Amino acid sequence: MTFSRIDKLSQKLEALEHAQAMLGVDEATNMPSGGGEKRAEAMAGLAAMYHEMAAAPHIAEWIVVAKAEDGSPEQRAAVDEYERSYINLTCLSSAFVEKQTAARIKSEQLWRTLRPKGDWRGFLPAFENIVAMAREEAQLRSATLELPPYDAMMEQFDPGNRAAEITPLFERLKANLKDLVPEVLERQKQRLKRHKPKPLAKSYPIEKQKALGLALMEAIGFDMDHGRLDVSHHPFCGGVPDDVRMTTRYTTKEFLSSLLGILHETGHGLYEQNLPKQWRHMPVGRARGMGAHESQSLFVEMQLARTPAFWEFALPIARKVLGKEALPGWKVEDVLARLHTVKRGFIRVEADEVTYPLHIILRYELEKALIEGTLRPRDVPEAWDAKMQESLGISTIDNMKDGPMQDVHWPSAAFGYFPSYTLGAMMAAQQWAAIEKKHPKVSAQITKGNITAVNDWRRKHIWERASFVSTPDLMQEATGEKLNVDYFIGHLKKRYLG
Amino acid sequence: MTFSRIDKLSQKLEALEHAQAMLGVDEATNMPSGGGEKRAEAMAGLAAMYHEMAAAPHIAEWIVVAKAEDGSPEQRAAVDEYERSYINLTCLSSAFVEKQTAARIKSEQLWRTLRPKGDWRGFLPAFENIVAMAREEAQLRSATLELPPYDAMMEQFDPGNRAAEITPLFERLKANLKDLVPEVLERQKQRLKRHKPKPLAKSYPIEKQKALGLALMEAIGFDMDHGRLDVSHHPFCGGVPDDVRMTTRYTTKEFLSSLLGILHETGHGLYEQNLPKQWRHMPVGRARGMGAHESQSLFVEMQLARTPAFWEFALPIARKVLGKEALPGWKVEDVLARLHTVKRGFIRVEADEVTYPLHIILRYELEKALIEGTLRPRDVPEAWDAKMQESLGISTIDNMKDGPMQDVHWPSAAFGYFPSYTLGAMMAAQQWAAIEKKHPKVSAQITKGNITAVNDWRRKHIWERASFVSTPDLMQEATGEKLNVDYFIGHLKKRYLG
Repeated sequence: MTFSRIDKLSQKLEALEHAQAMLGVDEATNMPSGGGEKRAEAMAGLAAMYHEMAAAPHIAEWIVVAKAEDGSPEQRAAVDEYERSYINLTCLSSAFVEKQTAARIKSEQLWRTLRPKGDWRGFLPAFENIVAMAREEAQLRSATLELPPYDAMMEQFDPGNRAAEITPLFERLKANLKDLVPEVLERQKQRLKRHKPKPLAKSYPIEKQKALGLALMEAIGFDMDHGRLDVSHHPFCGGVPDDVRMTTRYTTKEFLSSLLGILHETGHGLYEQNLPKQWRHMPVGRARGMGAHESQSLFVEMQLARTPAFWEFALPIARKVLGKEALPGWKVEDVLARLHTVKRGFIRVEADEVTYPLHIILRYELEKALIEGTLRPRDVPEAWDAKMQESLGISTIDNMKDGPMQDVHWPSAAFGYFPSYTLGAMMAAQQWAAIEKKHPKVSAQITKGNITAVNDWRRKHIWERASFVSTPDLMQEATGEKLNVDYFIGHLKKRYLG
Repeated sequence: MTFSRIDKLSQKLEALEHAQAMLGVDEATNMPSGGGEKRAEAMAGLAAMYHEMAAAPHIAEWIVVAKAEDGSPEQRAAVDEYERSYINLTCLSSAFVEKQTAARIKSEQLWRTLRPKGDWRGFLPAFENIVAMAREEAQLRSATLELPPYDAMMEQFDPGNRAAEITPLFERLKANLKDLVPEVLERQKQRLKRHKPKPLAKSYPIEKQKALGLALMEAIGFDMDHGRLDVSHHPFCGGVPDDVRMTTRYTTKEFLSSLLGILHETGHGLYEQNLPKQWRHMPVGRARGMGAHESQSLFVEMQLARTPAFWEFALPIARKVLGKEALPGWKVEDVLARLHTVKRGFIRVEADEVTYPLHIILRYELEKALIEGTLRPRDVPEAWDAKMQESLGISTIDNMKDGPMQDVHWPSAAFGYFPSYTLGAMMAAQQWAAIEKKHPKVSAQITKGNITAVNDWRRKHIWERASFVSTPDLMQEATGEKLNVDYFIGHLKKRYLG
C-alpha cells in the first residue's frame, strides 16, 4: 500500500523534526553563545535535508495513489492532511524560499538594531522589500490554493480560516470593546477605591517560584515524566509531544507574572502531550494550528487560572510553597485584583485580555491591506496611529519603537499569523461555555482542584482531534456551533463588569 | 574538483553528527524518562540517515579520483583520512551491523539485569553470542584492512596501534608493577604513620563545588564561551568542538573526587575545543583516537592536577571558593595524600593510577585471546581470576559482579578499546616529560597558575595535529621518539617512591 510509504517517510521526517525541536530548545536554554555559529550551520543543514526529503516530487504521485486506496477514515484523513501539508510546503519554489529567507534574516537583524532607536526611516527599505516579497508569496500561495491572497497566507497557520468569516467577528468585537474598555476602567477605579489589594512581599526566591509553578503544572494535568520546565529569555513551549519543554523567566520582585506565564505555556503543553499517540509522526496527528494552540494556552491562562474557583484551590498551595510571609494577608480577591488589572497601553505583549484584541485587530486590518496592496509600507505609521487613537485613544506617531516597530512578526515576514491570537481567545471562551453547559458544577469541582471534567472534555474535543478536521470544523464539532464572538464578549463582561 | 564534493558531503554529515551529539547530551542531562522512547526512535532514524549518506557506494569512486588530484598537503591528508574512515564504516555489511546491533542491545540489557546478581551462568549464552559475532567482525575487518584480527578491531579506536608493539610495552609495565605495587603500599603505610591527612569538613555544598570546578576549568584553559558543565549520572565530555558539554556528579561528603573528575573531562574538552577550526567537519579534523583522547584527560588529571605545583596554585582558590572551614588546616600535602592513595581493588573504574594498568592489561590479554579464539567465553572467569591473583593478589572467582561482569565494554561488543586507557596514561607521561625537557621551569610556572607553556606545547603537538597522522606517528613527532613505557614507569616511581 502506498499509505505505508507515506507513513514510513513520516517516521523519517519525525526524526529530523525531533532533532530540530530539541536543538532549538537547547539553543534557548543551555547553549553558550560561542556555540551559535555551528548550531546555525547544523540547523540549516537539517532544514535542507528535511526539505529535500519532504518536498520530493515523487511524493505528489504517492498522494494521488494513496487517496484512491481503501483505508480507515483516519487513514483517509491522514492522507488528506498530508496532501494539505505537502502543498503548503511545495507551493513556493526553492529559489523563492532562498531569496525570501535571506531577506528575512537581514530584515530581522536590522529590526533588532533599529527598534531600540525607533528608526523607522532606516528600517523602511528593508520593510518594503519584505512586504513586496510577502505579496509575491501570497500570490504564489493563492494561485496554488485557489484562495484570496490573505486567506492563502493564513492557511499556513490556521487551515480553514477565511477573512470573510473573521472580519465580521473582529468588527463586532471592536465595536463592543469601544464601549467596554472605558466602562471596565471606570469600574476598576471604583473597585480600587473600595479595596486596595494587599502588598507584595519584598522578594520571591526563584527556587520557590519554580516549585509553585511545577506544583500547579502538575495539578492541572501536565505529565512531568514527559516534559520539563526551564528558563529562557523568551518563554516558550517547545520539544515534542512525548517530551514537552516549557520555559519561563523569573523576577524576584513578584511571582504572578511568571506563574501565569507558566500556566499559559502549560496550556500549550497539555495540547501537545495529549495529541493522539499513534498519529504523532504524521501531519494529521499535530496540533490543528496556531489559533487552536492559542485557544489551549489561553483556556488555561484566562478561562481557568484567572477565576475565583481556581484561586480557592491554588492560594493555599501558593501559601504553602512560597511561605505565608510571601502573601501577607492575601485572600483570593487580592490575587484576582492583580490578575484582572486593565490598562490602555502601547505594547501588545503587555496588554490585558480586554485591550489585547484591539492590538490584534489593528494589525489584522493593516497586514491584510499590505498584502492586498491597498496600504503602502511607508504609510503604516500614520495608519497605525489613526487606529490606535480610534481604538485606545493613545498615539504612537512619535514613538515608532512602541508602535509599528514593536513586534518581530512583520520583520520576519510572518503575515497572516496575528489573527490567531484573538481567534484563540474567542475559541477558549466558547470552549469554556460549552464545558460549563455540559458540567454546570465545573467551577465547584475546580475549587477542590478537580479538573477532570475540564480536561476530559478538552481531550475528547480538542486534543485527540489533532488535525483530523479544519479549525472552523473543530469548533463546530466541539461546541455545536461555529466560532461565535459573543462568548468572548460575554466572558469579558462577566469578569470585568459582573 | 572531487575534493570539494567530499568537503560538501562532510558538511552535511556534520549537521547530523551535531544533532546526534547534542541529543545524546540532552538525554543524559535533561530528558525526562518518558521522552526516552521517541528519543531512541529519533536517534535510530538519524543514524540510518547518516549511514545512508556516509556509506554510499559512489563515495568510493570520489575517493579514488580525489587521491589523484593535486592539492595541499592538508587536503591530501584529509582525503587519506576520509578513506580510512570510509573503509572502517563500510567494511561490515548492513545486514551484519543490523544483526550485531540487535544482539548487542539484548546482551547489554541482560547484563544490566544480571550484573547486580553476579549471574554469570545466566549471562554466558548472550556473551558467547557476542564473542562469536565479534570474532566474525574481526575477520571481516581483518580481510578488508589486511591486518591481524585483533589489530583490525583496535584500528577503529586507535589507528596505527598494533598488538606487536603494544604487547611488549604491557609486558614490561606489568613486570615493573609487580614489584612497584607492594613497594608503594609499604611506603604509603610509612607515610600515613608520619602524617595523617587533615579531616574533611562535614559537608560540601554542590553549588560551591560547581563554582570551584568552573574556576579551575577556566584556569587550565577551558573556554566557557564554547562549552558548559552540567550534571549526569555517568560523567562524560560530549557535544561538538565549538560547544563542548561536560558533566560530573557530586557528593556532598567530599569534593576531590568530583573535582578531579571535572579536571579529567576538562582534558578531553581542551582537546576538542582546540582542534583545527577549518577541518572540524572532516575526519582529519577530529581527535586522533581513544588513546590520544585519554592521554589528554589523563594529562590534566594525573600529570597536572595531582602535582604539588598545581595545588600550590589551586589550594588558595579552593579555600576562597569553598570557604576556609571546608579545608580545616589543609596544606598541599594533605590534598596530595588523598589524591595519591593507592589500593588493591576489584574494580577498574575505582582504581588508582598505579594499579589501574594491571586491570587493563588483564582485559587486553583476555579479549585478544577471545578474538583470536584461544580462550573460550566460558573459561573467562577462571582466566580472569588467575590473572587477578597473579597481578594484584586478590580473587574474584566467587564474585562475578566485581570480576568479569563489571564493565559494559564486552557486553556491548566493544573489543579492542580497553588498551586505549593505559596507552593514554603512557602517552600523557611521555608528553609531560617532553614538555619538562623543553621547559625546565614549567612546574614553577604552574605554581603561579601559568600553564601557557603546557597548553602551547599541547596545542601545537597534539590538538592541532588532529588526525593528520596516526597515533604512533603523533607521539613520534611530538616527543621525538615512539611510545616508551619507561616515562610512565618513571612517573609512577617519582610520585609514589620519590
